[in-house]
Amino acid sequence: MQTSPKPKLLIFDVNGTLLNMDGIKTAINQAYQHPGAFTQWFSWLLQYSLVDTVTKTYHPFSEIAEAALQMTAASLKVNVDAVFMQDILKSMQQLPPHPDILTGLDLLKKAGYKMVTLTNSASAAQKKQLEFAQLNAYFEETFSVDAVELYKPHPKTYQYVLDELNFDPQETMLIAAHGWDVAGAARAGLQTAFIARDGQALYPLAKKPEFVCADLHELAVQLAAL
Amino acid sequence: MQTSPKPKLLIFDVNGTLLNMDGIKTAINQAYQHPGAFTQWFSWLLQYSLVDTVTKTYHPFSEIAEAALQMTAASLKVNVDAVFMQDILKSMQQLPPHPDILTGLDLLKKAGYKMVTLTNSASAAQKKQLEFAQLNAYFEETFSVDAVELYKPHPKTYQYVLDELNFDPQETMLIAAHGWDVAGAARAGLQTAFIARDGQALYPLAKKPEFVCADLHELAVQLAAL
Repeated sequence: MQTSPKPKLLIFDVNGTLLNMDGIKTAINQAYQHPGAFTQWFSWLLQYSLVDTVTKTYHPFSEIAEAALQMTAASLKVNVDAVFMQDILKSMQQLPPHPDILTGLDLLKKAGYKMVTLTNSASAAQKKQLEFAQLNAYFEETFSVDAVELYKPHPKTYQYVLDELNFDPQETMLIAAHGWDVAGAARAGLQTAFIARDGQALYPLAKKPEFVCADLHELAVQLAAL
Repeated sequence: MQTSPKPKLLIFDVNGTLLNMDGIKTAINQAYQHPGAFTQWFSWLLQYSLVDTVTKTYHPFSEIAEAALQMTAASLKVNVDAVFMQDILKSMQQLPPHPDILTGLDLLKKAGYKMVTLTNSASAAQKKQLEFAQLNAYFEETFSVDAVELYKPHPKTYQYVLDELNFDPQETMLIAAHGWDVAGAARAGLQTAFIARDGQALYPLAKKPEFVCADLHELAVQLAAL
């Protein structure tokens, strides 16, 4: 069995991985009067970010998020106030961290890992997100796909971070709670860790991640022991 | 206002546009014990087909469909029998046409339109689908994305059909019940028509289609009058 080298750089996904979207889920399912409305919205948000990517068109993540809110209302045949949609977009910038994040990041920082973020959110939106969640101190740099105008999991999004920091993919680990993100990072040559958050699933047709953990604290304990 | 020329070639999407997936929707929502399960499954099927496309990896649509069935079970924390999943994949090849399809296609055929299909289903799967639904007689040719190993709405999927048939995009119309398909075709320069089937929605950040109709019969009446 081939063993992977200890990673030197950890790249964190933000929405859903570091930050908790449960409040938005409850609000959307209630306003749209359907227990699958949030999932439909977020799936379409991700699908249409890739529709834009393959058609060489770029819109900021929050614009696609708003479009997907409108589409979800149309598809479920409910009237949803435009003010509610604006409130959802604002609350995307005021997400709390998951409860395991602070102790997990503390452990990893003490273990000496270099840590950065890479998110589908636009740079300005990510800045507000990390400030609100008070997570800035943990990350040496923060990256957004808006620099390359391609959405994750396009391989150029990961390569862009590696190029900026002068790291090789095999000494880097992408940490995310989304099957598509770890699938894409693995196909770009990175090591990966999957945080198995509620409602998430690995993509069975992609390479298995180096780590699958229930939360970041559990992963941090294992990475700190390497 | 710029008016579009009368289209000479009509390209039809298959799953959901010509063929009715309501039976599969009921079966999946029941087996997965959640009213949003089918929507989650089909959204993931489409999202992961694009994950494969942007990472230059190709799996047949039915393999991604099976993977998405497994992911939906994992995400909803339900046990779903592997036999049920195989039955769903089989029933994807035994879909009835929507009730408006036969009269719509009849009208368009009599009006002299050249008609072909372009589907995300693999070639062999599409063959079985159109035979089961008895729609073969309407189409001069049938195309699958497997020829280019890229999923719709990648522009090369539409361009491939145009190249094969030696048509220009502006004299061609893509007819589909999916916002992402008409968005992609429009960005590849084709005219588009959206069939507003239940649960579907247009992508607000893309060009408006030339036609938006409740069903194919309604569209056919308008196209026959051009």
